Amino acid sequence: MRNIRLIIEYDGSRYQGWQRLGKDSNTNTIQGKLEAVLCKMTGEDINITGSGRTDAGVHAYGQVANFHTNSSFPCPEIKEYLTKYLPSDIGILKVEEAGERFHSRLNAKSKTYLYRIALPGIPNVFERKYLWQFPEPLDVSRMQKAANYYIGNHDFKGFSSIKKTKKSTVREIYSVSIEQTQREIQITYTGNGFLHNMVRILTGTLVEIGRGTMKPEDILKVYQTKDRKRAGITAPPQGLFLVNVEY
Amino acid sequence: MRNIRLIIEYDGSRYQGWQRLGKDSNTNTIQGKLEAVLCKMTGEDINITGSGRTDAGVHAYGQVANFHTNSSFPCPEIKEYLTKYLPSDIGILKVEEAGERFHSRLNAKSKTYLYRIALPGIPNVFERKYLWQFPEPLDVSRMQKAANYYIGNHDFKGFSSIKKTKKSTVREIYSVSIEQTQREIQITYTGNGFLHNMVRILTGTLVEIGRGTMKPEDILKVYQTKDRKRAGITAPPQGLFLVNVEY
Repeated sequence: MRNIRLIIEYDGSRYQGWQRLGKDSNTNTIQGKLEAVLCKMTGEDINITGSGRTDAGVHAYGQVANFHTNSSFPCPEIKEYLTKYLPSDIGILKVEEAGERFHSRLNAKSKTYLYRIALPGIPNVFERKYLWQFPEPLDVSRMQKAANYYIGNHDFKGFSSIKKTKKSTVREIYSVSIEQTQREIQITYTGNGFLHNMVRILTGTLVEIGRGTMKPEDILKVYQTKDRKRAGITAPPQGLFLVNVEY
Repeated sequence: MRNIRLIIEYDGSRYQGWQRLGKDSNTNTIQGKLEAVLCKMTGEDINITGSGRTDAGVHAYGQVANFHTNSSFPCPEIKEYLTKYLPSDIGILKVEEAGERFHSRLNAKSKTYLYRIALPGIPNVFERKYLWQFPEPLDVSRMQKAANYYIGNHDFKGFSSIKKTKKSTVREIYSVSIEQTQREIQITYTGNGFLHNMVRILTGTLVEIGRGTMKPEDILKVYQTKDRKRAGITAPPQGLFLVNVEY
């Protein structure tokens, strides 16, 4: 059986997220759309595995996924068929043969996310669906100082929307970079994995620190208490992009 | 009476174009939206003059407009009010006092338009509403050669959708530049004025030349005959941007 790897970009605006909800592939999810087209092409019951979920409204420049098939369509033909039948807000960047043991979620070594915040007072007519329009000025150097507390191995449970779990909530963040351009603040996170809503809560916390309603040191208290209520707000989904997944 | 100049960017996707249709400012036009908000702010019957119309679905990075008012609101306050009450697909870049004789249409010396064509096979998920997704490869050097025929003073009647007119259809094009990036072909036109649909027909003609269904020299026949049928197709509106207006 062949194992096919896909690299996908999508505008998440009108989707309920990456992951198909239940067995019904008609739910409005990226995974559901992809599976529906691949089932139609191959006549098989295709199950796609993504590198991880993205929430409703979150975008991707480079989501990775894989699926198994007995069909013999060459990769360029699969790419062409997907491009033809997928909606224009889902784009296929690559279709390639993967080793039979490749698993897009279990083999992922690290992931990079970008969060984009618009500077106040600047209209972003053409980018408005891909930014958090935060109305107040933010102290970027204060945010940068705070971001250093994110780097390393930490129990990020307080920075996630996970209620109870037996699984580990320890993750390692390798880097957080914050850049200010003429129009926006771009925060890029790379780490070995991210919990549910974690990037959005890390960002909301940085924003509260940048506007002065939280202190950089408050991050340490979230690690200690694992208390979601001590972290900042959850940044809205439309500013978040899954940039790429490294294996 | 004060004369106020506005510089405006807009995503034209969901509008019937720049110009208000008739006296009813409730039509879905950029001008209508601006006037409605300014009337609400000033209590006056504000009439906005734009540098020129843009068609339904055409965008602007820098449309210029002006209006007269007896109100005493300072410019920054007008900008703030417009920003607050306009929809997010219309952005106000500048609000400033203009000389009393300034007229955004009659005083315009030149205009620059950009037309964006996507290269085939590349998904443009985040730019899909701002590009013409032309499905075939285009010979850019052939298009460049043809574009030289546009430069100078010509009767562009055959390159417009104007049926009959007593006004001159002679315009001067100062420059046409064609650049190919990794994802798209960008054609930039600067001239002293453009007839109705002219940039879209000039572009459609270049595209037919680039794909081989027309020859560069066919442009000369359009000048001679003034026959719209001898020019190429009208490129769709979503790839077109009014970049700026010079005075």
